[in-house]
Amino acid sequence: MKRVVVEEKILERNNESAEKIRQILKDKDVFALNFMASPGAGKTTVIERTIEALKDSYRISYIDGDLDTDRDASRIKNLGVDVVQINTSGACHLDAYMVLKALEKVSLDCDLLIIENVGNLVCPATFDIGTHKNIVILSVPEGDDKIKKYPVMFNIADVVLLNKVDLLKFLNFDVDKVKRELRDVNPKAKLIQISATEGYGMKMWYSFLERLRPSPILETVGPFPQTV
Amino acid sequence: MKRVVVEEKILERNNESAEKIRQILKDKDVFALNFMASPGAGKTTVIERTIEALKDSYRISYIDGDLDTDRDASRIKNLGVDVVQINTSGACHLDAYMVLKALEKVSLDCDLLIIENVGNLVCPATFDIGTHKNIVILSVPEGDDKIKKYPVMFNIADVVLLNKVDLLKFLNFDVDKVKRELRDVNPKAKLIQISATEGYGMKMWYSFLERLRPSPILETVGPFPQTV
Repeated sequence: MKRVVVEEKILERNNESAEKIRQILKDKDVFALNFMASPGAGKTTVIERTIEALKDSYRISYIDGDLDTDRDASRIKNLGVDVVQINTSGACHLDAYMVLKALEKVSLDCDLLIIENVGNLVCPATFDIGTHKNIVILSVPEGDDKIKKYPVMFNIADVVLLNKVDLLKFLNFDVDKVKRELRDVNPKAKLIQISATEGYGMKMWYSFLERLRPSPILETVGPFPQTV
Repeated sequence: MKRVVVEEKILERNNESAEKIRQILKDKDVFALNFMASPGAGKTTVIERTIEALKDSYRISYIDGDLDTDRDASRIKNLGVDVVQINTSGACHLDAYMVLKALEKVSLDCDLLIIENVGNLVCPATFDIGTHKNIVILSVPEGDDKIKKYPVMFNIADVVLLNKVDLLKFLNFDVDKVKRELRDVNPKAKLIQISATEGYGMKMWYSFLERLRPSPILETVGPFPQTV
């Protein structure tokens, strides 16, 4: 199948750009997160809450990947952090080359760089964009069968945020099944139950985020906020 | 950008296969639907209910595209219709070549062929798989901002099923905004509000499905069931 060869070449070029990104982040002492999820799982809301909680203690920049519109970017810009929007013009994921170009524009005088990928539980998982950690959000209304149906994504997750748990009382959703399947697919991933709109579990997430950062990155700016 | 050239070649090959599919469906008098949505929007449940409602009057076959697992295919197989599973092995959409291969296996002694695409609101929209109509499901928990954020998908929809409207009372979701944005993006698309689990709106959907079929396909088997 010729398509496989094409895909390998694309991924090879992607990895070259991802290496460049890793070097830039290291040089600048910036800790970077790649947020991935289906459309509507709550990426932007989780990011908004996270920035609100951390922005007084840390300098944060944000890159938004969207097919079209600057709706997410505008929401984050209102929080006063530096924002760069990548319009992928229909492409279903961010690739490292797009992110590398965005790094030329976004302020890297920051401690934490948050990248919001295109809403898609499939393709973004294949494209390394040079960040330190992958945060995958699964929301309760999507159903409890998603871990094994989208194993490529959950396999690369460092953290799975199970969002919208305030809806558990209205829906038939088995949290234990999700835990079990995540253990099978990716035993190293941490699962945190949250409701970004209602606040449930968010302090645990902020606190875990502190422990995620690889030493010595961010050592220069001290620990994550003690308020969480 | 070399990637664009690659993409064009892939799409060119895809369209050749899609033409072959169209010819086969025409020869066999089969009316085919392509169901697309985000993960967890309710594709399989909508299809289950639809098959239950129509299977006594129509011969139905089903092709399921999934990254991994045969969970959806097993659910539909329990309904007694002919099922073929395509495991895309990580690919984020069905392409026409995959569907063409599946047509060699699935029973085409049917009136209606339902194809469930990979859970993804982006990539499947780019790959014509030769079906007559595109059914796109948007679910209330995904949020009311999705039409303009994923315009490529909603632009090719013949019908948008707004699913899980039973959750409207718990969520901040503006149905009028969705209607307005769909009119902007794709004024020809029909929006039907449903709750596949609770039954709301489903009769309207079955009834509309009857009117979707292009004449003279299905003329030989009579109108869609009068019971809907």
